[in-house]
Amino acid sequence: MFEFSYLVALLATVTFSITGVLAARTVRIDLFGVVVVGVVTAVGGGTLRDIILDVPVFWIEDASYVVAAVIAAVATFVLKDLISRRYQLLLYLDALGVALFASSAIIKTLSLGLENTHAAVMGVITGIGGGLIRDLLTGRPTLIMSRDLYASPILLGVSVQLLVLAHTGMSASLAMLLGGAVIFLSRCAAIHWHLQMPDQLTLDSRDSGH
Amino acid sequence: MFEFSYLVALLATVTFSITGVLAARTVRIDLFGVVVVGVVTAVGGGTLRDIILDVPVFWIEDASYVVAAVIAAVATFVLKDLISRRYQLLLYLDALGVALFASSAIIKTLSLGLENTHAAVMGVITGIGGGLIRDLLTGRPTLIMSRDLYASPILLGVSVQLLVLAHTGMSASLAMLLGGAVIFLSRCAAIHWHLQMPDQLTLDSRDSGH
Amino acid sequence: MFEFSYLVALLATVTFSITGVLAARTVRIDLFGVVVVGVVTAVGGGTLRDIILDVPVFWIEDASYVVAAVIAAVATFVLKDLISRRYQLLLYLDALGVALFASSAIIKTLSLGLENTHAAVMGVITGIGGGLIRDLLTGRPTLIMSRDLYASPILLGVSVQLLVLAHTGMSASLAMLLGGAVIFLSRCAAIHWHLQMPDQLTLDSRDSGH
Repeated sequence: MFEFSYLVALLATVTFSITGVLAARTVRIDLFGVVVVGVVTAVGGGTLRDIILDVPVFWIEDASYVVAAVIAAVATFVLKDLISRRYQLLLYLDALGVALFASSAIIKTLSLGLENTHAAVMGVITGIGGGLIRDLLTGRPTLIMSRDLYASPILLGVSVQLLVLAHTGMSASLAMLLGGAVIFLSRCAAIHWHLQMPDQLTLDSRDSGH
Repeated sequence: MFEFSYLVALLATVTFSITGVLAARTVRIDLFGVVVVGVVTAVGGGTLRDIILDVPVFWIEDASYVVAAVIAAVATFVLKDLISRRYQLLLYLDALGVALFASSAIIKTLSLGLENTHAAVMGVITGIGGGLIRDLLTGRPTLIMSRDLYASPILLGVSVQLLVLAHTGMSASLAMLLGGAVIFLSRCAAIHWHLQMPDQLTLDSRDSGH
Repeated sequence: MFEFSYLVALLATVTFSITGVLAARTVRIDLFGVVVVGVVTAVGGGTLRDIILDVPVFWIEDASYVVAAVIAAVATFVLKDLISRRYQLLLYLDALGVALFASSAIIKTLSLGLENTHAAVMGVITGIGGGLIRDLLTGRPTLIMSRDLYASPILLGVSVQLLVLAHTGMSASLAMLLGGAVIFLSRCAAIHWHLQMPDQLTLDSRDSGH
């Protein structure tokens, strides 16, 4: 169980580091700048989570997350010419990172004896924290403003995970897998088919005053 | 006293959640995205305050703040068509949230035995923190760049509250009400009459080099 | 040793407060707004460092940093007409602040018994944290996106400082001076001669798809 969480967190860190490098491609930025953006993106969400929960920050306890983020950033930089449809890749990798971080944050929050409400909020904050920091640092519109469904898949997966944990005998690891899969797959569907909320459930400046 | 502080914090949370939703209207964003922006805006400033003071984060101790922020965000979304002059409303609600958060942060900081300087800084950070996060997330120019007086009313109210506490026998609750009222009313005046600092006390790019 | 660190931190705080005011000059902002931006810029990086390290925030322990930042911001505002080539000055002062904050963060991190990896990350985060917050608050492109070398000088100086500490008998203070000097001088060289990474080590949108 513990090792599984460790691997999930490591994979999420690597994933977000790659998205940081891909997001930075829209400006002229050198190798070391790329590494900084990659690492901050990778550890940003989990750092926010741990600070708010007042537990030791995960990469202070185990520096291997930082090392993994650095290696992933450099590797992405080196292999950048192999990546042709980068923007789509960025979206899918972001979806994977969000799914991994959000579902594992729920386990961590509940293991501290906190409530489901806390777990849901920490899942969302951890899931989108790194990506938001990445978007702010690289001057992009934040992904939360994405035209396609973005917050909804996260809230859906987080709800599924918490409901399953509360009402079935499913193990925490399995529930994490399930919640993460719901987030990843529903976000992938949103990206691929450009799924959007029905207009009644969408705020749009063009409606203002009606 | 404690219940009064609780009600003030709850009102400030609800107020800022509403401003988050109103600020998000300038982009296409769905119901769940709206809830995320509303909650992060609502609890952002107080979270910053508690993390810097190294005390338990207020919504971790009591999840009802998060629940209130979610309800406020959804209600604002549902009632959005009733709100016609949204931008003005956003400004006045922001003024109310800033006043409530800033004046209550002073009480919390002083109750930890810290100095007036700390209380003033925490008042400002708590007051503008949530609004700054909201503006960054929704890609708006931060309100601190407002043409009309913004930081000045906060510093004025904070100073009044601290002076009254130090030099009169006024209770902490009453001083909080007074400080908050000074912030709210002077900011409202600034919005309504477009009060600005005299040019000698304003930094302006058009003056550069003179 | 302790007093030396104190002076370095105070100088870095003052330096970053001045850059905050200079950065804010591109928008219309009044005296009190200037003070808020100056203080947040000045204490932002070190605050991030202390929160992540879970040690008391430096300006909570000693309010004189805040007082110094306020005085520096007001003085810069008053003397703004004397400063003609502001943008260049902003860059050089930013380089000085980054050098001071980064090299002193390494000492603080190592003194907590953490590893070199942690010290390097904390050096970078502390060095660029205040500047990033400043750039976000004032709506500027973040300096990490600078065309000229920015992250590289920091990583170079941080590496030199850590290598010297690990492999020579040099004192912590002297190593800090050396690391800080490497950061400052190499960043100054980058600003003055517009040094950039060779194209092979730069990510550039114009290369995309190749």
